[in-house]
Amino acid sequence: MRVYNFSAGPAMLPLAALERAQAELTDWQGSGMSVMEVSHRSKAFIACAAQAEQALRDLMGVPDNYRVLFLQGGATGQFAAVPMNLTRPGDQVAYVKTGSWSGKAIAAARAQEVTLEVVADEAATKYTTTPAPASLEVPADAAYLHYTPNETIGGVEFGYVPEVEAPLVADMSSTILSATVDVSKYGVIYAGAQKNMGPAGLCVVIVRDDLLGRARPTTPAILDWTQMAAADSMLNTPPTFGIYLLGLILDWIGQQGGLEAVAAANQAKAAALYGAIDGSDFYANPVAPEARSRTNVPFTLADPALDGEFLAGAEAAGLTNLKGHRSVGGMRASLYNAMPMAGVEALISYMDQFAARH
Amino acid sequence: MRVYNFSAGPAMLPLAALERAQAELTDWQGSGMSVMEVSHRSKAFIACAAQAEQALRDLMGVPDNYRVLFLQGGATGQFAAVPMNLTRPGDQVAYVKTGSWSGKAIAAARAQEVTLEVVADEAATKYTTTPAPASLEVPADAAYLHYTPNETIGGVEFGYVPEVEAPLVADMSSTILSATVDVSKYGVIYAGAQKNMGPAGLCVVIVRDDLLGRARPTTPAILDWTQMAAADSMLNTPPTFGIYLLGLILDWIGQQGGLEAVAAANQAKAAALYGAIDGSDFYANPVAPEARSRTNVPFTLADPALDGEFLAGAEAAGLTNLKGHRSVGGMRASLYNAMPMAGVEALISYMDQFAARH
Repeated sequence: MRVYNFSAGPAMLPLAALERAQAELTDWQGSGMSVMEVSHRSKAFIACAAQAEQALRDLMGVPDNYRVLFLQGGATGQFAAVPMNLTRPGDQVAYVKTGSWSGKAIAAARAQEVTLEVVADEAATKYTTTPAPASLEVPADAAYLHYTPNETIGGVEFGYVPEVEAPLVADMSSTILSATVDVSKYGVIYAGAQKNMGPAGLCVVIVRDDLLGRARPTTPAILDWTQMAAADSMLNTPPTFGIYLLGLILDWIGQQGGLEAVAAANQAKAAALYGAIDGSDFYANPVAPEARSRTNVPFTLADPALDGEFLAGAEAAGLTNLKGHRSVGGMRASLYNAMPMAGVEALISYMDQFAARH
Repeated sequence: MRVYNFSAGPAMLPLAALERAQAELTDWQGSGMSVMEVSHRSKAFIACAAQAEQALRDLMGVPDNYRVLFLQGGATGQFAAVPMNLTRPGDQVAYVKTGSWSGKAIAAARAQEVTLEVVADEAATKYTTTPAPASLEVPADAAYLHYTPNETIGGVEFGYVPEVEAPLVADMSSTILSATVDVSKYGVIYAGAQKNMGPAGLCVVIVRDDLLGRARPTTPAILDWTQMAAADSMLNTPPTFGIYLLGLILDWIGQQGGLEAVAAANQAKAAALYGAIDGSDFYANPVAPEARSRTNVPFTLADPALDGEFLAGAEAAGLTNLKGHRSVGGMRASLYNAMPMAGVEALISYMDQFAARH
């Protein structure tokens, strides 16, 4: 029996995509081989990767002057790749700190010896807010402004896209493909696949082509956007199974009606869950209403001593991976695209029953 | 119908492992989730990764003073990681050049600003030989000697392990798990998974623990052996599906009788194919007999104008991906662990018939 998996990532994937992969796992397209056994330089696989790229471009409306790269190493790899590809040591860069993941991006950039200014840091609210749009003052010579539109751990999401002169760089790991996005507002978008795009091990980078050609000579080739763009992401063997599965998942998103439809469903899921939390004295979410994540919903029980019982009962009811991140405790429900409204309704029903019992 | 897939990588995988993965692709261990949907920090997945590591240690006899890391970015990532983890800019390092892949490792190391000496270069024989053991003179202050035990493109393999004072670093992408190996002779072994270990996107690094702690501060975390060892390869989300499949493939190798049995089978496969090539005026292999690869067997037809017909006929007979690398032309048959003797026999039979027809 499939469960409702609220994991923050790796996360629930669309069953239809998994079943398609399962059906053809030992014989892909009648080739007599698994897609995992096919050369990445074969016509069939090159077509598979090109189709996945085109589907991503179509769904997100990626303009022609942007390159889409399929890389490895996750968002963590890109934390180092961003300054390596866009700066020389000593160059000025700007970051917004809204929680754990932006904090890691900042630490990784500092290791690349840039001059780094944190232009906003939400420490004063314990990272339960996003900065006011007008407060973001970016140094005139900054090579870029980096921010994290959604903090997967804290459950904090920007309700706006920063308007700045510097190229905007965004870690969209937990929200890519969850709603429409105006790619033209960004210089670089990057995202690990293991939430809305597929299995862990694939990382998508969308980069405006005028930002290519700037990589430091010491940038490892696997993180060098310029080299990878020149080689159509096949400078070395790409994570072929991940790219293939991304294609299946993009097909599924198309069948749902595209990003507008997916966004509406995600909005409804989040509204239902926040409604249940806010309508109860038993549950609480600490995030400022305008900064609440549509995707990752942390919540606490009035009595933390009941956490274990809550989790055990949820597990027994087929509601899994609700334990909050070790750094914040409590619960967290991640509502990626593959989580149906029925899963959220089942969670709310369980929460109501649990609260009523205690 | 499954075919005999002679691809150099991604390559043929054991059908038993693929079928097991297929059976549980939407519900792993009765969890109601795919292994791809399970958190890498869950008990179940940590156990899965630990079992894969232990099986690899048992099969290869990895000593206790070595760490086994599951990384991303393939061997190409390690081309940069090796100097980043073992040197500072300007440090002396030594490389052996025996073909395309060692050449790429050399270029990537030079980009890290080391003082690099190529202690042997087989250009004079057009990379159809390995250097004489006694000819390898490594500078006394070299941080390491890097070599490529098997060149996947040229089909050249070392018949010996270099005996040097400096830590020995080996790119074993195409031969890891194909035969027994004395790990204690090496400082570092690394290998992309997509030949004998699983799907593309997983890279295994085996490093002697006294070589940790030396990484440059600018090393991206995903390539930093020290940080990754400290985090049990889970500093960031690892390629979970690849690690899982590696475990299934290691189980299969164990069922074959371990590396001694696998080595004997590989030896028999290679001997049969080289025998067929050498026993014919129609086919030729350019590599010096003592340097012939057991794994990647390039061969040419007496008349290259027949290459297209040879390949089309082979494909029709279920013998796929025999086209040689674009840099050398002709044919190449890769005989990884999953290729059965029956596949080699079918290839030889086809080659004999084709030669007889022309």
